[in-house]
Amino acid sequence: MDYPPNKLLMLPGPTNVPDRVRHAMIRSMVNHRSETFTRVLRSVTDKSRPLFQTERDPLVLTASGTGGVEAAVWNIVRPGDRVVVPVAGEFGSRLAEVIELAGAETTRVTSEPGTVPSLESVEEAVRKVRGLKAVYVVHNETSAGTNVPYIERLAKAAADAGAFFVVDAISSLGGYALPVDRWGIDICVTGSQKCLAAPPGLALLSVSKKAADFIKGNPPRVRYFDLGRQIDFLAHGETPFTPAIPLYYALDEALSWLIEEGLEVRVERHARHAKSLYSLLGAMGVRLLADERVRSNTVVAGYYPQGVDDKVFRQKLNDEQDIVIGAGVGNLKGKVFRVGCMGDISASHVNRTAAAMALTFQKMGYPVDLKAVSAVLAS
Amino acid sequence: MDYPPNKLLMLPGPTNVPDRVRHAMIRSMVNHRSETFTRVLRSVTDKSRPLFQTERDPLVLTASGTGGVEAAVWNIVRPGDRVVVPVAGEFGSRLAEVIELAGAETTRVTSEPGTVPSLESVEEAVRKVRGLKAVYVVHNETSAGTNVPYIERLAKAAADAGAFFVVDAISSLGGYALPVDRWGIDICVTGSQKCLAAPPGLALLSVSKKAADFIKGNPPRVRYFDLGRQIDFLAHGETPFTPAIPLYYALDEALSWLIEEGLEVRVERHARHAKSLYSLLGAMGVRLLADERVRSNTVVAGYYPQGVDDKVFRQKLNDEQDIVIGAGVGNLKGKVFRVGCMGDISASHVNRTAAAMALTFQKMGYPVDLKAVSAVLAS
Repeated sequence: MDYPPNKLLMLPGPTNVPDRVRHAMIRSMVNHRSETFTRVLRSVTDKSRPLFQTERDPLVLTASGTGGVEAAVWNIVRPGDRVVVPVAGEFGSRLAEVIELAGAETTRVTSEPGTVPSLESVEEAVRKVRGLKAVYVVHNETSAGTNVPYIERLAKAAADAGAFFVVDAISSLGGYALPVDRWGIDICVTGSQKCLAAPPGLALLSVSKKAADFIKGNPPRVRYFDLGRQIDFLAHGETPFTPAIPLYYALDEALSWLIEEGLEVRVERHARHAKSLYSLLGAMGVRLLADERVRSNTVVAGYYPQGVDDKVFRQKLNDEQDIVIGAGVGNLKGKVFRVGCMGDISASHVNRTAAAMALTFQKMGYPVDLKAVSAVLAS
Repeated sequence: MDYPPNKLLMLPGPTNVPDRVRHAMIRSMVNHRSETFTRVLRSVTDKSRPLFQTERDPLVLTASGTGGVEAAVWNIVRPGDRVVVPVAGEFGSRLAEVIELAGAETTRVTSEPGTVPSLESVEEAVRKVRGLKAVYVVHNETSAGTNVPYIERLAKAAADAGAFFVVDAISSLGGYALPVDRWGIDICVTGSQKCLAAPPGLALLSVSKKAADFIKGNPPRVRYFDLGRQIDFLAHGETPFTPAIPLYYALDEALSWLIEEGLEVRVERHARHAKSLYSLLGAMGVRLLADERVRSNTVVAGYYPQGVDDKVFRQKLNDEQDIVIGAGVGNLKGKVFRVGCMGDISASHVNRTAAAMALTFQKMGYPVDLKAVSAVLAS
């Protein structure tokens, strides 16, 4: 295998992994049934608490974020259950599918690309569905660059209906704050490779007492993703199955950085750089995908100007500028680009990306008002 | 988190990870939807073929071995199916449980610890169960240090019964050869952290054409572990979900080493060092757990001599000799120790471990015939 080239990853995940995090992975291999690993696990657990703003012990699974979401589904949902799912794009749709695969009946509240279902429409569904088991929502729709701004209020609506409330915060937590205890989020899932700037391969989950009690009383049919077992083993400083030890080392270091920076500062940093990216793309005359009111601070999506081919554009950006951005997914493939604004995001990353995009648009025959772009860069 | 100390891991996994493999993890992060990652994935796939001795493309999942086993279950087994499972210990038992959780009815063919069910008894069950869907077997029972010597013949029996044949080779593949195409193994699962000497966090699976056709025609209810999707994405050089990229780098390097060494040589190396470990423990007067005819070449288990406390023994070995061995699991906990003989295993590892164990037995009041041990060491 040839060595992968070093590029600036402006992707909606995986994101750039700082040296201190990457290098943590080469630490010695250890016995996962030992006090040594228990110290690693306790450290990761302790440092995850401020991320979720929880007093409870978050869980870490050896799996992609998608695996974590599936765990959040199979541990709560049982065949015949009724679940409400706001769907604002591809990932909302996938979430609803996984819930249906687990045997539940979903009520999907959908919206046009670039928007999110209104709170009122979701609340109405929550009120109308009888015997509602749970509300599952994707906080940040990575496919569209939109963000659901009413998590706290939806948590309240779910609670009023006596339903569990589960948030897929894969591409948002850390870039956004979701105080799970205060807001009453029963399960919140995120991935290591997004706003945490760790490598992919771990899913992090907070589980409320209510959800934990339910799971233990009603063990799921899946074993690897059985969260009750994860909770029981964690109480003794272990994981039920052999964990991806080097990824725990990396996550521990990434969480140290989060704590040094502070969640509030990190959230503000994401918002600031996203705002700057939106302004820069606006100055380039790019039509943004997301409605301004629900624009994401972690994934910035825009339509390609007419005549600019997706593949050629991203290839040129990659080859000539060493910058990697994301393509559209689902039925937006080829029509939109997605720029990640996550984790290690900085002014230098944003400015370098915007300058490279403007230059590449120019080269590909789309005229950019470079003065306008420069003015934003200089502001 | 304090840095973990560097110990000699003589565990039934995770095993020692050579520097070349460990260091591979710090390579640059890449876009998992790019030609760059496709090259990584193709390289890992190509290098996995000789491991399974298959012409097909093995799959790599971001999960522990247990996750891989669960994938092998949920993709084949459907509610109401009938499955035969030889059970020689804890891991066989866990496999049967996972099959039952997926809704199947199992016929367990059990045996005493240290033995494995006879081929005849398993064959009889295979013949007797009507409408048999599959036979699932743990090749190497990590809890007991036993190895099932009749995989090829059992594959034949399963085929004769029209059943799928699935092998959990987590703690054996690489230390043993299982030519999956030639023997007709429909799914064979192994883990990265055993005989491959890579870090934990990846499961590798071979899937026969027959199994792949079944899975695609009958998609499983689990999404993350849907092998049909894994196969379809792999055909385009991708994984369905974000893979644990640094672990792929490490696995690629570990597989390079396997190819340089050659599978046959590696298998012989495991056999030679296991034989040496058994002789050394014999010279110490330790009663071995496994019946001689089914002793494992990758996990060597023995009963503690009377008066030697498990925890104290392993703690002393760890603290005074920097050597980590495994404890007993299930109802053998406290009664037996398990020494891993996997992956990077060498004469130096074996001799250092045996000498340290002999010394520690002595210190703990169990007299060892050091002359006899020395004679074996010198032989």
